[in-house]
Parts: sequence; C-alpha cells; structure tokens
Amino acid sequence: MQRPILPQRMRTETTPLPSLRALAAQFAHIRRRSLALAAPLSEEDCGAQSMADASPVKWHLAHTTWFFETFILETYESGFRPFDPAFRILFNSYYNGVGARHPRPERGLLTRPGLPTIMAYRAAVDERIGALLEAPSDHGADPTHAGLARLLQLGLQHEQQHQELLLTDVKHLLSFNPAMGAYAASALPASPQAPAGHGALGWQRLGGGVHEIGHGGDGFCFDNEMPRHRQFIEPFEFARRLVSNREFAAFIEAGGYRDPALWLAEGWDLVCRQQWSHPLYWRRDPERDGKWLEFTLHGLGPLDPERPVTHVSLFEADAYAQWLASGHAAGADHGATRLPTEAEWECAADAANAAKITELAQYGHLHPHAAADGDQISQLFADCWQWTSSSYAPYPGFSAAAGAIGEYNGKFMINQYVLRGSSCATPPGHSRNSYRNFFPAGARWQFSGIRLARSV
Amino acid sequence: MQRPILPQRMRTETTPLPSLRALAAQFAHIRRRSLALAAPLSEEDCGAQSMADASPVKWHLAHTTWFFETFILETYESGFRPFDPAFRILFNSYYNGVGARHPRPERGLLTRPGLPTIMAYRAAVDERIGALLEAPSDHGADPTHAGLARLLQLGLQHEQQHQELLLTDVKHLLSFNPAMGAYAASALPASPQAPAGHGALGWQRLGGGVHEIGHGGDGFCFDNEMPRHRQFIEPFEFARRLVSNREFAAFIEAGGYRDPALWLAEGWDLVCRQQWSHPLYWRRDPERDGKWLEFTLHGLGPLDPERPVTHVSLFEADAYAQWLASGHAAGADHGATRLPTEAEWECAADAANAAKITELAQYGHLHPHAAADGDQISQLFADCWQWTSSSYAPYPGFSAAAGAIGEYNGKFMINQYVLRGSSCATPPGHSRNSYRNFFPAGARWQFSGIRLARSV
Amino acid sequence: MQRPILPQRMRTETTPLPSLRALAAQFAHIRRRSLALAAPLSEEDCGAQSMADASPVKWHLAHTTWFFETFILETYESGFRPFDPAFRILFNSYYNGVGARHPRPERGLLTRPGLPTIMAYRAAVDERIGALLEAPSDHGADPTHAGLARLLQLGLQHEQQHQELLLTDVKHLLSFNPAMGAYAASALPASPQAPAGHGALGWQRLGGGVHEIGHGGDGFCFDNEMPRHRQFIEPFEFARRLVSNREFAAFIEAGGYRDPALWLAEGWDLVCRQQWSHPLYWRRDPERDGKWLEFTLHGLGPLDPERPVTHVSLFEADAYAQWLASGHAAGADHGATRLPTEAEWECAADAANAAKITELAQYGHLHPHAAADGDQISQLFADCWQWTSSSYAPYPGFSAAAGAIGEYNGKFMINQYVLRGSSCATPPGHSRNSYRNFFPAGARWQFSGIRLARSV
Amino acid sequence: MQRPILPQRMRTETTPLPSLRALAAQFAHIRRRSLALAAPLSEEDCGAQSMADASPVKWHLAHTTWFFETFILETYESGFRPFDPAFRILFNSYYNGVGARHPRPERGLLTRPGLPTIMAYRAAVDERIGALLEAPSDHGADPTHAGLARLLQLGLQHEQQHQELLLTDVKHLLSFNPAMGAYAASALPASPQAPAGHGALGWQRLGGGVHEIGHGGDGFCFDNEMPRHRQFIEPFEFARRLVSNREFAAFIEAGGYRDPALWLAEGWDLVCRQQWSHPLYWRRDPERDGKWLEFTLHGLGPLDPERPVTHVSLFEADAYAQWLASGHAAGADHGATRLPTEAEWECAADAANAAKITELAQYGHLHPHAAADGDQISQLFADCWQWTSSSYAPYPGFSAAAGAIGEYNGKFMINQYVLRGSSCATPPGHSRNSYRNFFPAGARWQFSGIRLARSV
Repeated sequence: MQRPILPQRMRTETTPLPSLRALAAQFAHIRRRSLALAAPLSEEDCGAQSMADASPVKWHLAHTTWFFETFILETYESGFRPFDPAFRILFNSYYNGVGARHPRPERGLLTRPGLPTIMAYRAAVDERIGALLEAPSDHGADPTHAGLARLLQLGLQHEQQHQELLLTDVKHLLSFNPAMGAYAASALPASPQAPAGHGALGWQRLGGGVHEIGHGGDGFCFDNEMPRHRQFIEPFEFARRLVSNREFAAFIEAGGYRDPALWLAEGWDLVCRQQWSHPLYWRRDPERDGKWLEFTLHGLGPLDPERPVTHVSLFEADAYAQWLASGHAAGADHGATRLPTEAEWECAADAANAAKITELAQYGHLHPHAAADGDQISQLFADCWQWTSSSYAPYPGFSAAAGAIGEYNGKFMINQYVLRGSSCATPPGHSRNSYRNFFPAGARWQFSGIRLARSV
Repeated sequence: MQRPILPQRMRTETTPLPSLRALAAQFAHIRRRSLALAAPLSEEDCGAQSMADASPVKWHLAHTTWFFETFILETYESGFRPFDPAFRILFNSYYNGVGARHPRPERGLLTRPGLPTIMAYRAAVDERIGALLEAPSDHGADPTHAGLARLLQLGLQHEQQHQELLLTDVKHLLSFNPAMGAYAASALPASPQAPAGHGALGWQRLGGGVHEIGHGGDGFCFDNEMPRHRQFIEPFEFARRLVSNREFAAFIEAGGYRDPALWLAEGWDLVCRQQWSHPLYWRRDPERDGKWLEFTLHGLGPLDPERPVTHVSLFEADAYAQWLASGHAAGADHGATRLPTEAEWECAADAANAAKITELAQYGHLHPHAAADGDQISQLFADCWQWTSSSYAPYPGFSAAAGAIGEYNGKFMINQYVLRGSSCATPPGHSRNSYRNFFPAGARWQFSGIRLARSV
Repeated sequence: MQRPILPQRMRTETTPLPSLRALAAQFAHIRRRSLALAAPLSEEDCGAQSMADASPVKWHLAHTTWFFETFILETYESGFRPFDPAFRILFNSYYNGVGARHPRPERGLLTRPGLPTIMAYRAAVDERIGALLEAPSDHGADPTHAGLARLLQLGLQHEQQHQELLLTDVKHLLSFNPAMGAYAASALPASPQAPAGHGALGWQRLGGGVHEIGHGGDGFCFDNEMPRHRQFIEPFEFARRLVSNREFAAFIEAGGYRDPALWLAEGWDLVCRQQWSHPLYWRRDPERDGKWLEFTLHGLGPLDPERPVTHVSLFEADAYAQWLASGHAAGADHGATRLPTEAEWECAADAANAAKITELAQYGHLHPHAAADGDQISQLFADCWQWTSSSYAPYPGFSAAAGAIGEYNGKFMINQYVLRGSSCATPPGHSRNSYRNFFPAGARWQFSGIRLARSV
Repeated sequence: MQRPILPQRMRTETTPLPSLRALAAQFAHIRRRSLALAAPLSEEDCGAQSMADASPVKWHLAHTTWFFETFILETYESGFRPFDPAFRILFNSYYNGVGARHPRPERGLLTRPGLPTIMAYRAAVDERIGALLEAPSDHGADPTHAGLARLLQLGLQHEQQHQELLLTDVKHLLSFNPAMGAYAASALPASPQAPAGHGALGWQRLGGGVHEIGHGGDGFCFDNEMPRHRQFIEPFEFARRLVSNREFAAFIEAGGYRDPALWLAEGWDLVCRQQWSHPLYWRRDPERDGKWLEFTLHGLGPLDPERPVTHVSLFEADAYAQWLASGHAAGADHGATRLPTEAEWECAADAANAAKITELAQYGHLHPHAAADGDQISQLFADCWQWTSSSYAPYPGFSAAAGAIGEYNGKFMINQYVLRGSSCATPPGHSRNSYRNFFPAGARWQFSGIRLARSV
C-alpha cells in the first residue's frame, strides 16, 4: 500500500472528532501494538530489507514515529527540538515537501542508528505526544484542538497501515530462508477437511441501479474514499467466498501457468520472465512427491486446501477467472467469471452489512482462514485483500488538501489496481466497506486473494 | 494502439452488413491508401525500426496483408496456398493462436523479404481477395456470406489503424535525424496569430445523470466499444478546445518539468530518468536564442503557438492540469482542472453531435490544426487524440469471441489508458464517439494532446 | 575490431613510404573492393543494424569515406569544403577530437542520407583524393608529401579493416532470418571426408628463450604492433591446425556447455544468462534428427565436420581447451591444453615463416577451409582469427601520437583479448605475423576459432 | 579479491610444512583476530550487505568457518557430523564442487541463523579443529599429516584474506550513512605538513634483462604465484612512493574527470554512467567551501593531503598517469608516466628487498600512511594495493590441482587486473613480493592506490 494520507474530514467537518483523551488512549494502544509485532524478531531480522518495495521492520518503527514528530510535535509542541536532526531525512518516506530523503532501496543499509536507538526514539516521542495531549498549548486559531486531533487520528491510521506492511515485509524477508523462517511461535492448524460436495462456490445477485459509493457514515476515512458519489451498477453476481487453495491447485494442474490464452499480455510477460508457476509462497516438497507446501508466518508446512489462495497478483487472479470462464475446469459451469469492479465489491459489502460481520472476525492466526459454509457472502474482511479490476483513480470531485501532508494525495493514482476488504494482517478496527487499498497488478507479497464476479 | 480486433457484431447481429460489392470497393480504396502513404519513402525508410514499440513501414504493409491472407483466404479460398509459408511467422503480430511469431524488437532486421517482394505480396493477395469477392465459394453454413463480410470489414478497419501507426512510426524514425527528416513534401503553414484576448479557454457544462456509453448506432465498431451500458455521470465541465502550444510553453517556462508536486509519482520517475523537459518533438533552436522548434511530418520548423500541443504522455497532460489547478498560471483561474474520464468525453461528444462535425474535418496537413474560435466544443476529432483518466478496462458484460481472431480480445486491458477522439493521422471515416484508443501512460509518439475537464 | 589507427611509422621513419602514384593505384583498388562487397546487397540490407556492436553496411561505406575526407582532404585540399557538413557528426565513429558523433546504437536509424547519396559521397571523395594525388598542394613543411602518404596508407588499412567488419556485420544481420539470408550466390562445397585416423592433432615444439615480438620488417604496421621488444618465452608446443567442427561437436555431445567446471566464471555466467549451447551460427535441423546446420555467408547448410569451428568466444575456446585437458575426450591424451599467449603465437608464426604461406592462401569462399593434412603449422591465416590468452595491452615503450588521429591510440587496451592471424573475411594483403586484432572475451560474431597450445 | 585457494605446494613439496603444533597456535591466533575485527560492530552492522560484491561481516565469520568444517573436519574428523546441514549451502561461496549455494546478492537477507548462532558455530568448529590437531586420526596414506597441515595452512590464509574483505566491506556499508559511520573508536591524526619543495616524486631505474618472477623462497604461497618463471623486462623506472591525495586533487581541479582524452574508453563510460568525479570516499564539505572530506574507517574528516590517494579504480589510476604524462600538470615533467606491469612491480620489490621492509610496517591505523621522505622505494606494503596494467592470467605452466578445493583455480583469470603489495587492512604477515591480488578494473572499494612507472 503506498499510503494515501489526507483525511477528507479536514475539509468537510461533518463528523465529530474523538476527544484528545480518547485519542491518547488509542495512541498508547496502537503504539504498543507495533512493539508487540516486532517483539518476536531479532535485531538482524529488524534491519534487513528484502527488496526495494519492502522496508525493514526497524524502518517501519522509525518512520511511523517520524510521522508524529514531523507533522505533530514540530507544529504543536512549544520549544520543539528534533530527537535527532538526521532522522528528518533518514525516515522520510516520500514527502518531497518535507525535504530530502534517504533512497528507498537503501533502507536496509541503515545499520546506524541501531534498533535500541530507534526504541529510544519511539519512547521519547511517545512521551512528548502524551505530554502534549495532557496539556495542548493554546492555539488561537484552533481552540478546540481539532487540527491536532485530526493529525493524531491520521498518524494512528498511518501506523496501522505500517503494522500490516511490517508483517508482509518480514514474511517476504523470512521466505528467503524458509527452513529457518517462522515468525510466529505457534504452528498453523489444518482446517477440517470439507465433506465431499460441500462448499461449492455460490453466487449472490446484486446491482441493477444507481448505488452510492464512498465513505458516508461517521468515523475516520482516507481522502481517497471521498467524495461519496453515485455510480450506476449493471446487474451482476458476486461469489459468496474466496477461491480456495484446492481450486487454485486445479488451475495449476490444468496448465494454467503455461497457457498464454488465459493471461493479460503484460501478465504473460511476467510469467515468462520471472518463471512464475505458483503463488508466491508455495513450494514443492521434494520428499513428498512434489506435494505443495506453503510458507506462512507460522513457518513452512503442507498447503491447506481449504484456506483461500493468497499472495497472488492481479494477473494470476484474472487468469484464474478466465480459466474458470473457459469451461475447462472440472465441476459446475460458473459462466463468464471475472474479477469484480471496486464499485461492485462495495455494493456487495453494503448488501452483506459487512461492517457488522467484521466485528466478529477472529484474528487467531496470521493466515487467511477457510470459509465457513453457508449462503452468506463471507470472507470480505480479515482473510485476504481482494483484487478488483478497477484501476486506482480519483473519485469525481476528489481534490487534495493544501500543505506538506496533503501534497501528494493522488500521486499514486496511476498503474495501480484497487484491492478491497482487509486481510489477516490488517489491525483490528482498520477495515470498512469503503476502504481502498492499491498495488501494482504484479504485486504478490501482500495477503491478496481472489474474489470472483460475473455479469448477468 | 495495440489493436482490439473482434467486432462485437459477430455476436449481436443487429446492424446490416455492407454487401460484398460495397466491401470490394472499400477494399480497393483502403488498400491503395496504404501504398500512397508509403510512396514518399525510400526502401531504407520503409525498413528501419526506431524502437520496439514501433514497426517498420514495410512490416505494416506486410502484416495488414497477412491479416487478409490468414483470416480470410485461408478460410474462404478454395485450394488455398500461402504466398510464402515463412510469412505466417514473420508477419504475425501477437496472435499466439496462429502460432509462432518473429520477435517484435527485431522487425527492423528483416531486410529479406525486401520491399519489392512485399509489394508483390500485397498485389497477389489483393487480386485473390478481389476474385473471392467476385465469386465467393459456397459455404453451406453461411449462405449470405456474413462471416466473410464481417472479417473483411474487420480487416479494413485493422488496415486503417495501421495507416495511422505507419505515420507515427515513421515520424519517430525520422526524428532521429531531424535535419534530413521531412516525410511530406510541403511545409506546414503558420497559423494566423490570434488577436490578444482572443481564444481564452471556454467551458461547457454537462453530465448530472445516467448516460448511455458505448457503441449504439449502425455501422462497424470494435468489441471493446460494447456492450452499450449505463453510467452515472456527476455534473462536470468540459473544455471547448485543446491546450495549445502557447499554453504548454508557459507551463514549461514556469518550471513545470522541475516541480515534483505536479506529477504523478511514476511520471516524476520518468521525467527524472529520461530527462524529459518538453514534448517529444520540441527542440530548442541554438541559433534563435533557444526558441522552440517542432519536428513534424512536414519537417523541422518554428513551433506554432496556436496549434494544440501534441506528443505528450498522460503524465504530462495530468501535470499540466495540476499546474493549471494550482493557480500559478497567469490569466483566468480555471479551478480544479483535471483530465476527463472516458465516459465524460463520450458524453461531451454526444452532446456536441460530434459525428456530424467530423464530416467537415479537413485533413489538409499531417499535424493538428489551431482551434477555431467559438463557443462550440471543438477539436474532438482529426487533431489530437485526447488522454482520459480512465484505465482501459472491459465494459460490463464484455466477452471475447471464440477462435483465433478473438483469442485475445481483452489481453491489453491492464496498465493502459484510454484516449478518445482521433488525430490528424487517423484515416478519414475511422472516427466515432465511442471509439476507444489506448496506450500506456508514458507513450508519447502518438498524436496525443490535452483536453481538460473539471468537476462542478 | 575496435580499430587502432596510428601508424608507428610516424615516429620511427625507418621504412620507405610508397610513392603517391603507387598509393593512388592502391586507393582505387581498395575503394572499388568495398563497393564490390556491397554489391550483392539491397538498400535495405545495407541500412539495417543488428546490434550495437555491428554497423550497417551503408555506415561502413560512409565512415571510411569520412575518414579520407576528414583526415586528408580537410588538411591537404586547398579550398576544402565538406561534401555535407552534417556528415562530420553522422559518420564519426569514436573520435572525440573531431567533435560530436551520432550514437552508435542508432546507426541503423539513419535512413537519410540514403544509399545513393552515400554512393555519390564516395564518388566525390574518390575524385577529390585522385586529384589531390595527381597534384598535391605545396606544403612547405613536408616537401616529400610524407604526411599525406602516411595518412593515405592509414586510410586504406582502415578501409580494409572495415571490409572485414562489413562481412561479419552483414552475416550477423542475415542470421536473424536464416531461411532467406545468403550473402553469396554460390553454395559452400562440402570438404572431402577425412579418412579414418587421418588428421589427428599434431604439435610443434617451440620457445625456450628470448624472442623478439612486434613489427620489425618493412611495410605498414599499426602502432599497437610497436615497439618491437624482447620477451622470454618458456618452452611450449603449438597445435599444427585449428580445432575442427567435428572435434567441437564432441565437446557439445559430452555436455561441455553444461559443466561449470570447464568454464571461466564470467564465461559460465554468459552461458547461463544467454543460454549458449553451441557456436553462434550453429542450428539444429528439426527435420534431420537434430543434426547440426551452420549458417554461413553462403546460406544455411549442413555443418561441415572438417572445417574449423568458428564464431566462438574466448570463453568457449578456453572451455574446449579445459575439456581436452581434463582427459575426458575420446582419443589421444593431449596433456594440459590451453590457449597460446600472443607472444607464443607470433613465435610460432615466425617459425613457420608464415608470411610466405599467406601469399598462397586462397580466398575462394567466405568461410574457413578444412586443414590440409601434414606436419606443418597450418591455418595461421585466412581461415579463422585465433583467440590468445593475452589481454590487449600496450607493448613496453608504446606511446600515442599527438593530434586528433592519434588521440585514442590505447583507449581500447582494457578488458579485450588479442586474436592473431587473419580470417577468410580479411582482405588479401592485410595479414602479418605481428598483427594484433582484439575483441572482448564474449564476442562471437567475428570469424574466431580455436588454436591450442600446451606447456612442456 | 576473489580468492585463489590452492597452494602450489601440494604438488611441488619443496618446502617444509609447519608442524601441527605450530599450526594450532597460528589457528588460535588468526581465528581470534577475526572476532576482534567484528567486536566494534553491532548485530545489525554484521548482518547488512551493501552490494553484491560485498558480504556481511556475519557471512565472512561463517564462511571462513565453513571452510574448515567442509575441507578439514569432513575429511579428517572421525564420526564427522555437520554443525548444521543447512550451512553447507548457506555459507558456500562459489564451490560448485561442494554443491548448491545461497545466491551471493542475498547474503544480507540471511537474518537467520543470527550472529549468536554463528559465534557458536565458530566456537564449535574451533574446538573440534583443536581436538583434531591434538590427536589427528591415523591416515594410512599420509602418516606425517602433510595433507591436513596443508589444508589448515590454506584455511588460515583464506581467513586472513577475508579479514581484509571484512574491513573493506564494512567500510562500504558504513559509507551509506557517513555521519554515523565510524568503525574505529579513535580519530585519524593529520600527517605533518610536508615542507615546501619536499617530497617530490623520485624514480628508481630497474630492469633490462631476464628476471625470475613468482614465488621462489620458503613458506606458503597461493597457486597463482607459481610456477616461478623467467620474464624479459625492458629497462624502466619505478616511482619511489605512491601518488598522494594532494597530487590527485590537482588532477581533479584540472578537470581530469571531465576530459575523455585521458581515459580508457570503458573507463570513460563508467565516469559518465556513474558520474564519477572523485575517489570513492571523498566528499565535498558544504560548510567549508566545498573543501574535501574523506570517509575512513575512523569516520568522516578532512582529507589529509599527504596520505596516498586510495579507493580508486584502475581507470582512475590510468587516467592520472595519462594526465601526468600529458605535461599539463604543474611542476616537474615526469615524462611518459604509466602504470607498471606486475613483473616490473615484482622486480622493483625484489630490488628493494621489500620483504624485510615489511617486517617494520606499522599497523597503527586503518588507513594508508603518508610516505616517509627519502630515496628508497617505499609504500610497497601496508598502505595501498597498487594497480598494475597486467591482466590476471596464469603463469606459464600453471595448472590446477584435482578435487573440489582446486576445482576452480583459474576461473577468475579473465577481465581482472592484478594489484600488488598489500594495504593497511591486510593482516600482518600476509604480504610477500610475489603475492597477486586481483579485481575488475572498475572496482574501488578496496584500499587501492596508484604506483607510477615509466619506460626509459
């Protein structure tokens, strides 16, 4: 996720902001959670960077702190002095408005400052933010501290986004040496074997009219979810669950990775050039006749056929849909399957009253769970992000806020595709129907899965 | 244009097809036009390939012929024998269903067969197609010859697309040595100087409801224009003309190519990496104080400030809109300018009754013309293709036809953006409101210009 | 060959120069030969460039003419005016001292000026050189016209070097479409089958003392062949003939391209990255059980086992020697075979009185010939250039001349390796024992073959 | 240094081997020194890899241990069991004969096993080697334990080579964040300012006959130093000291990095592509009028003009020599300066009786020292490695030993150039006149400096 950061609320002011006291409690809670996520890792684990798109854990811990220091303390703390002036450059991600920055692909080379210094940096900024919230200085222009509250809220959402990235980045790192690479101490339990005939893919009919899209209720949202606006949605059907590992393995067995007719042209280029033949973290087990293994945050183990397929690119998701539509898969004919648009996805989530469902989501393991059987739309949240066919683009009327923080609101709105929902790595409370995640079509290191749709 | 090729009509059958006699006349006319376009060029000009994205003129002449031979003669001619069996591979563009193909970046290395052989190939196929249309063999399954007619119609549209590419590809080639590089014998006349205060950018209000998008009337269309479907379009305003060279030069003077705040992140990377500082074919004149020159198909000459800016990428178009929206441009405040979506563009073209306007378009020169003054929407067709903010994606309900010809209908529907309208290089009769051209956001060698819009 | 160009004679003045009259005759002869080499080719053949390392035939024809115009006419012709001022840049190869130059990888894009213009350029310069030699203007500083004679001699040697490159470059181009790609009208005859037991590799013992290396006799030489100097050569043995296709095919059959133990580390990287599995122009014949074909300037035909293997890199030559040394080849044990140093090669050529042999060489075909049986050292000249293990480095005391022409004498003396001898594509009279050709170790498009040596 | 590893002694057996007891003492001493070198570094410092050519400190510590485990314990320890079977792959550098290996550019991603595990690995192998040397098992074929002694000696030399690499690699890493990057606790003292007119470059005349090259005396050498053989060396002069920072700064001021006439063609490409304008670790000080700083293992400080220039490529060394030869430098005319050949260097070292000098070298700081004034050849050892113009090639009669350890003896003998001497980072006792270090001509991260020579 290349993070959108400006809350639309800054302009519209229709929702009550949380109090500073409430925010202080959230702040303490969320900041602690970042430390808890890093706790199982060694200093070395925290320092390495496995590719330019990923960042070291230490960098996530520092950058989220930098965000509070730069955008809040620097403005609101009287007598502000930086913890270390060099950090302004070292831990700036991409804000040209803030000034220079350390080159992204070289984040793993920053062995100094070391992890203990970063921990001290976090503690110092936490303490200063705490003090500020206890006794915010008097701002003539903002007596209710709304600006402070909004930036704090944004900083916390920002930190939550990095919590998910921390997990997907460390998973990518550990995958280079999977024999030694569990993040979580516990093993991943096998899902109960589904009875034969059970669990066939079901469909829900939706659409056929003007639908409102975008954030509409109370509470925080990012600016890219706004403005709420109308879209006409032709009738369509939405798959009740995600595509499973069992189903995706059948695609592989049928030669799906070897048939150019199933792939978008650019996807086929990637398949050939990078020699893709399975999802990112699948491995063949040389000692069990090539049976599939999967590397998860719980270590390397047998592939669980009931869980949803994950760590696939948009290209693989689309090729799977094409293959199913081609009628060559065994089993029921599902017609002209395809990926949903983001409007269709949001329409389905609204229909499913998904927000309520989310409350019940269990964050037991750091891997997507098998679908429950039933005739409800399921697995919208807390399992896998779901690729849509929609490119990431501004909603009608979208515009960026002024100043450094809003400087680049839309600058990622090109050649990226929207994912909807949330994943097993998403922090609790960080999901909603209107949330727009986005990555390039070839990205595979997020918990991305496949939701199917079809026109009627 | 990576060509969409399957006519939706194959499935829907709602429009009467032209008669074989009428098609034979069109065939002769269009095929002759390709030869006329190549006539000013030497054998060497016809053989060279300036980049992987462009093809040699000779290859265009051969590939369009291959299309008729492979998809029509091979099916409909009794006793078919190929002109040369090697051509099946050499002149296949991207149809895996037809078999192997010569690598695209090596098209310029095919000095054999030489241009005279290709001319003989064209003549032979033309004669055989002529004979076939005179006396089509009896197809029990298709007594009205509808299949033949449809494929012929498609082949002609395909050839027209390549006529435009032939011109943009040869322009790109000649630009490597601009001192010697005119394609057209005539010089490009200067536009009359606009009087002061004249020609300010005007806006037309549109939208605000459900609009039908996609091909709806009689006549040919490509499959990607179908199905016609409904979209809700929020109210917006549409610029009455294209952005001019004068206006774009002001953007350059104001440092537009040096300010990252104006650019999409990926565009800024391109600006830095490829050191963009002006549209593709602008040059500084070292002997006239660095005044702008422009290389056109009519040769290298002074930049005409009244003509529309052309050969810009989507990134440059978007940065220009951002700059204008930022309020730093001299003159009137145009508000939050942006690029239109393709639905907005089509809505505007429908409102302008643009098809009728097209009839009047003058194809006098191979370069876009200055806008006429007035309060009508102008320059929709025959000047520059217009970048939209819409990624190239399937319309709801789109599906590909069976067989080799339809094999890859949607395979380019990723990481490409839609351009609407047509250009000075588009063949007469090859434009319509629903036409969808598409290129990657960084492409600059087409006649692509800037149409602005804004939300209201 | 990245051409060394400054004749040592400029400094040493020990050898009589040819008269202007004699040079005029050579000039006419050599210049005509370039046209004869281009005669079988179409304009398209002459314009294309198959890779950055190769140049179009047209460019060779123009650049050699540019050399005479720039370095001779510009200095010696009174009232000099350039044929076309743009050519100074377009046809400069790498002389920064002369000014800017057209980028090397874009030589194939120069469709203008066309081939007829280049032919006119050649004719005009030939005529002006002819006139100059008839009546050289009076140079006070050089009454005997020695400077003029030396530059003319150099220009002719330079043109001969380009004659060889013209052939190897056009061979590379035509190889992209081998079915249509013969350069020569005649077919290549098969060599007589060698009787069994015939033609075993023989060895000649040499060395064991101080030997003089470098050009020593009369006649022209390049500066890199000078100064003649002493080297101590340990005793060694020199193979009497080149490695044959039959022998190299055995290396392939034995898995030579799949065994990293035989390869220099950088060579193995190339084998893997470029998937080398045979010499550059060998092909498997799908219709004859995968039997080897070879593409030659005479077209595609069965591999002739008796002819020397050619178009191999230094890496392949070295790997072959390692394989033979490893004792895994069938047949006689040849001991610790390796490539010779260039000093060893020159020592062997001197011992063989090779210059005299060269006189007898037959230039019947544009492909290396099978070795004659016998106990003499053979195939030193006129078949394949022979890789040595010597990096291209200055001889002790080497120094570059002043001025533009000598500006870069040694600038290629890094990461290139010396080849000795000459090839079937070398012009008659352009060979000598001290001649140093040089290419990067991975180059394969020259007529480069394998001469073995071993220490004793 | 891509390490040559096979001691020629294995074949020649002319020198007495150290006793196992003596080797045990050396083993303890050298192994401790590696730990001492890593002691100032954090776990994070030890884990990072700054480029593919460099390795993490942790990897050096593990790989040197792997060498003893794989080549000694596996052969000589009865009941051998590996410390961890996975290490066989993880810490193999390039021995295909040993089997698979972890990809070199991904060494920095091996956060597991962590540094504490590697320390335990070292301790375990040290203990087992110690036990083995106390009571070597009875080898019928080798009652004197010569094989064991030789491999141990080789392992220790190998570890010493990695000690130097450890320092140069960590220097490269820390240079990415120079403000925080000192390795050594102490600062580097300034050299005493040389009095005016003092310290001019002096020359020593040498050569002019047959000279023996290669290892000849007692003691260990690598196989690439053998066989000792004869070379004829033309008379030459050898600079008595290295080029200083002051002198190299004058080259920069004179535009040396901007004049293509001074550079080898491939060097000029690097200068342009990588925008070289100074030695690797020089920086301009923005707060002192752009005065030069140098980053050393002692931190970032003012450039010391008296110390030798270091961290230059062969290209920069050669360009400096060309510039001095061009006569444009201020001061004395030194004639046609150039780099020495490796034979000339060894001849000079022999003449200087350099081995004895080495004994006196002071390893006070981890940076090269200013030259002492005098008329002796100085700075041969313990300051900077010295580029020669000699490509790294086998000596006449060189041949590789059998088995995995000798598998690739010569595989780096291509496109690398020899450096002679030793540096401030070379372990004490690891220098000799015949030692051949080698790197690609563009490498700059070693302590490489400039020794000049000239022909007479």
